[in-house]
Amino acid sequence: MNSIGKKFRINIWGESHGKAIGITIDGCPAGIKLNQELLLNDIARRKSGAKGTTPRIEQDKPIILSGVYNGFTTGAPITVMVENNNTKSKDYENMPFRPGHADFVAHYKYKGFNDPRGGGHFSGRLTLPLVIAGAIAKQIIPDINIKAHIKELAGSADIEKAIDTAIANNDSIGGIVECCADNLPIGLGEPFFDSVESIISHLAFSIPAVKGIEFGSGFASALMTGKQHNDLISDKEGKTITNNAGGINGGITNGNQLVFRIAVKPTSTISTPQQSYNQITNKVEQFSIGGRHDVCIALRVPVVLEAITAIAIAELSL
Amino acid sequence: MNSIGKKFRINIWGESHGKAIGITIDGCPAGIKLNQELLLNDIARRKSGAKGTTPRIEQDKPIILSGVYNGFTTGAPITVMVENNNTKSKDYENMPFRPGHADFVAHYKYKGFNDPRGGGHFSGRLTLPLVIAGAIAKQIIPDINIKAHIKELAGSADIEKAIDTAIANNDSIGGIVECCADNLPIGLGEPFFDSVESIISHLAFSIPAVKGIEFGSGFASALMTGKQHNDLISDKEGKTITNNAGGINGGITNGNQLVFRIAVKPTSTISTPQQSYNQITNKVEQFSIGGRHDVCIALRVPVVLEAITAIAIAELSL
Amino acid sequence: MNSIGKKFRINIWGESHGKAIGITIDGCPAGIKLNQELLLNDIARRKSGAKGTTPRIEQDKPIILSGVYNGFTTGAPITVMVENNNTKSKDYENMPFRPGHADFVAHYKYKGFNDPRGGGHFSGRLTLPLVIAGAIAKQIIPDINIKAHIKELAGSADIEKAIDTAIANNDSIGGIVECCADNLPIGLGEPFFDSVESIISHLAFSIPAVKGIEFGSGFASALMTGKQHNDLISDKEGKTITNNAGGINGGITNGNQLVFRIAVKPTSTISTPQQSYNQITNKVEQFSIGGRHDVCIALRVPVVLEAITAIAIAELSL
Amino acid sequence: MNSIGKKFRINIWGESHGKAIGITIDGCPAGIKLNQELLLNDIARRKSGAKGTTPRIEQDKPIILSGVYNGFTTGAPITVMVENNNTKSKDYENMPFRPGHADFVAHYKYKGFNDPRGGGHFSGRLTLPLVIAGAIAKQIIPDINIKAHIKELAGSADIEKAIDTAIANNDSIGGIVECCADNLPIGLGEPFFDSVESIISHLAFSIPAVKGIEFGSGFASALMTGKQHNDLISDKEGKTITNNAGGINGGITNGNQLVFRIAVKPTSTISTPQQSYNQITNKVEQFSIGGRHDVCIALRVPVVLEAITAIAIAELSL
Repeated sequence: MNSIGKKFRINIWGESHGKAIGITIDGCPAGIKLNQELLLNDIARRKSGAKGTTPRIEQDKPIILSGVYNGFTTGAPITVMVENNNTKSKDYENMPFRPGHADFVAHYKYKGFNDPRGGGHFSGRLTLPLVIAGAIAKQIIPDINIKAHIKELAGSADIEKAIDTAIANNDSIGGIVECCADNLPIGLGEPFFDSVESIISHLAFSIPAVKGIEFGSGFASALMTGKQHNDLISDKEGKTITNNAGGINGGITNGNQLVFRIAVKPTSTISTPQQSYNQITNKVEQFSIGGRHDVCIALRVPVVLEAITAIAIAELSL
Repeated sequence: MNSIGKKFRINIWGESHGKAIGITIDGCPAGIKLNQELLLNDIARRKSGAKGTTPRIEQDKPIILSGVYNGFTTGAPITVMVENNNTKSKDYENMPFRPGHADFVAHYKYKGFNDPRGGGHFSGRLTLPLVIAGAIAKQIIPDINIKAHIKELAGSADIEKAIDTAIANNDSIGGIVECCADNLPIGLGEPFFDSVESIISHLAFSIPAVKGIEFGSGFASALMTGKQHNDLISDKEGKTITNNAGGINGGITNGNQLVFRIAVKPTSTISTPQQSYNQITNKVEQFSIGGRHDVCIALRVPVVLEAITAIAIAELSL
Repeated sequence: MNSIGKKFRINIWGESHGKAIGITIDGCPAGIKLNQELLLNDIARRKSGAKGTTPRIEQDKPIILSGVYNGFTTGAPITVMVENNNTKSKDYENMPFRPGHADFVAHYKYKGFNDPRGGGHFSGRLTLPLVIAGAIAKQIIPDINIKAHIKELAGSADIEKAIDTAIANNDSIGGIVECCADNLPIGLGEPFFDSVESIISHLAFSIPAVKGIEFGSGFASALMTGKQHNDLISDKEGKTITNNAGGINGGITNGNQLVFRIAVKPTSTISTPQQSYNQITNKVEQFSIGGRHDVCIALRVPVVLEAITAIAIAELSL
Repeated sequence: MNSIGKKFRINIWGESHGKAIGITIDGCPAGIKLNQELLLNDIARRKSGAKGTTPRIEQDKPIILSGVYNGFTTGAPITVMVENNNTKSKDYENMPFRPGHADFVAHYKYKGFNDPRGGGHFSGRLTLPLVIAGAIAKQIIPDINIKAHIKELAGSADIEKAIDTAIANNDSIGGIVECCADNLPIGLGEPFFDSVESIISHLAFSIPAVKGIEFGSGFASALMTGKQHNDLISDKEGKTITNNAGGINGGITNGNQLVFRIAVKPTSTISTPQQSYNQITNKVEQFSIGGRHDVCIALRVPVVLEAITAIAIAELSL
């Protein structure tokens, strides 16, 4: 299903090279003054254009079709559409299944009826509706401060150099993105099965290229002892001296900073020739992918990660 | 909500020291011959008793209350109850909030009405109903082979030594558990928002003490380049030469082995004195936790991880 | 699925002649003092024993397995079990499909694996868990007064006489049950698709033998003109002079009394011989149903109707 | 929530006088050749224009934004948008709450932020997206024949005369609409809580102006005895001699014709002056509603009723 949420419910739709992509948000409270600037700013942050990102640049103008009247949310579903303009589709149907992409599974699952152009519904372009939903979610929870940033690319904190090397090698690179949220109320989340980690990870793995997630000290906690890992509680508000838990105990926010990180794999599209199966020729072939692509998709992920965090918190707060 | 699943829906209930814990499974097809041996074997695998596990040993006899007739599932909801017998409850109400546990958040969220005995509904004991549901799920998907194992404890493959050290130090340790599934059909999962990773991670973070999850090369993929990471496709069934994707592309199974790992934090309960806030005395106190506990909770996780994997696959297959 | 509700979620399980029937309630707020007297009283009201009801009398003792601690709800799922004691099961497997019952469809849908004893999971006995959930729901919404009553049996307000006639004829009769709720807040319900009528009717058609439902003037409104039907608004709280709408406009409560009625068909089990197909003999046969049954199932419906109304209002209020 | 369905999930959005209304359908299988003619024909059947219907005539051109590629469904969400062109909005904000409409409850529930123009999201115009979803649902279940028709208006089978009288009186009238479905498979529906009656009634009460629903003999069954009402089974396929059950036993289709009827109240908008509360003047006022409206909204309901029936059957069949 292409929807998620019980209270702040989002429905994502569209294909990379179709008429439009969009989102329908159900459950947004009435009376929220829509901050257009925040919305446009988050859309701009997601856009490509910087070094290491694709030269396909879309206008990405959000058209609000419903749910907003006189600048305020009405309580009815909000549908926002973005038209696709800058598409180049001719090559996709005869190409072998691109390694690392969803081409093979999509073809198999939908019996060849999937829209293959630009990855169709599997495209990273579908993170744009997520960003739109996130920008609206942020306005539901204005007191909570959510910030994501690139922590490292290709294992290095020298991010510019990592990109230059990848470009020089006709290659792509992965990275780690970290997200923090401050000022969360205590008590969000449910023990089974809607822990904060469950809700956030469910959403995070909807971002293409994410292959891992960890909260607080995460995988490092597997190397720690209880004495090292336990966060001692220092006051009646539950403030802790350390924050190995990343702000969550028993699946529930404990009032400390929420911290989590995701692992983003290298962009699957690379200029270097690769081998794959071609269902048209019925052969394994050597082939090259032309087209436009990101050298490092992780660069465009922070605003998306903020978005899914805001969506998760709105869901748990309403 | 304490339930999950649209087709194979499970509802978990009970508290560590209450009358009983249990599970209601809705959506199990009719006509499945219930394999009692598999069920009892998985329950036994979860039990404590080995070195490093708690001396609280429960009988853990599953009582099937509904949904099974003449040894076969009927298509109606299956409820399985396990009575709690071996409980020692006296100390919990006057204790400070135990660091690393859900005591503080549970008290806050439920306004002091939560059952605090043994962690109540937050207890690791609630993984027993998950194991029961998993044992039934395995019988729905008999051709799929799911196996989980301890990969390392405290960063070491010498697991016995790691436990001995922790016991000697009155401390606890964490670990990494890996789960693999073979013989999965191609095409399970949905791009948004029910990717295989989303469904599995949502369930995995319902296991107490899990702080991270990664699929395929996971966090290591953030260090790789596209040339290294892309799994080249070598035949029309989508078989790949490497398996960095862990058997999933675009959120959908690709017919290769499903591989993922979770990080399990060290058991929060340790014998060493710790500091925390006590809501009865209204002070931060130094205190010791008596009672019985696991030195390494990761030891008991593999069968639980298999269970949630089977539950996820049943959900996606039905 | 045998569950309903997004916020006050109930899961019903069990079979008429199995070990136990029960309900798991998820989403009940913490801190509600459980009124045992109200619970036992509602269970007693549902019981048979009066003229026109079945001589199978069960003890119907509710056993609370989870979610209640020191007499208060904990916020964790509440599971209540009732054991089946007074069962006589020998005859069901060789009987033809009983007309009016679910025997045929259950056999077909579940490929013969359904529990046929006493109707199995389709039994009217499953209204007992509904009554239990309703009694708990009533305590969540203590200010709302819900009352249901028999409006007519077999088209007559002389209810005793209608029953006597049916008994004398070895026949059964249907009836109309009306339910009213006072003191509802304005604004419960959603336009699409969770109108108050949608939520209540969804639940009401889960009560066996219900074949129709109408709100306010209901089917009579199809005979009226707009001038007659429109409820004129007489003050700023939305009070109306008439109440043809039954307290609902646009699917949402308007602050006037909620009124609706259901049509209950005559009990399908009658002593008179009937004709049906027997899957054992593979023939259409004349046969008689022995066993114990209600002459008029409508007699036992009012407390069930109150229960589903309370469940619906709790769902919409939380 | 403005969505319904677990497998064939529909999300309705838009306001009467907003930019557009639409529907997002999730769960439609891939590979269905979209029959545009059927779609346009159903849209045309819903349109006004006949005697007794509103003179507001919209072009109602469906624009498919996603989920269809080369004329076939792709398996991704299908979004269909219809622009609103013929709107006249000036009068709604200063009007008293119109009797019989959702004006009062919408104003109250959404704290004055609802879009009041033409009823906003509560408008009967929102049945157009339902008709679009229904037309697509019909193509998923091509073998099932669903037909709805006006059974009576204002209690009379002489429908033309009933309309003429209402027009002459500046009044409006209600009616009964019946829907039948042939060729249904045996076994659709669930005993609790997703009976066929539950699913259909849940959807039917989302159609504005519906105040009652009955299946088979419905309310008449409350007047019958068991001997009269029981449908005797005459063969191994469950064929019955009578069809008082309307094709459903125990909530599950039994292979006989599905039959149900809904009661449609008279259109609330009438030309005759009425009394209501005006929140601007803070007074109860006598006022007249200008604007364009249907004398008998029931006239436009049959294709909507077919739509929700097709949606329900698709949901239960997939």
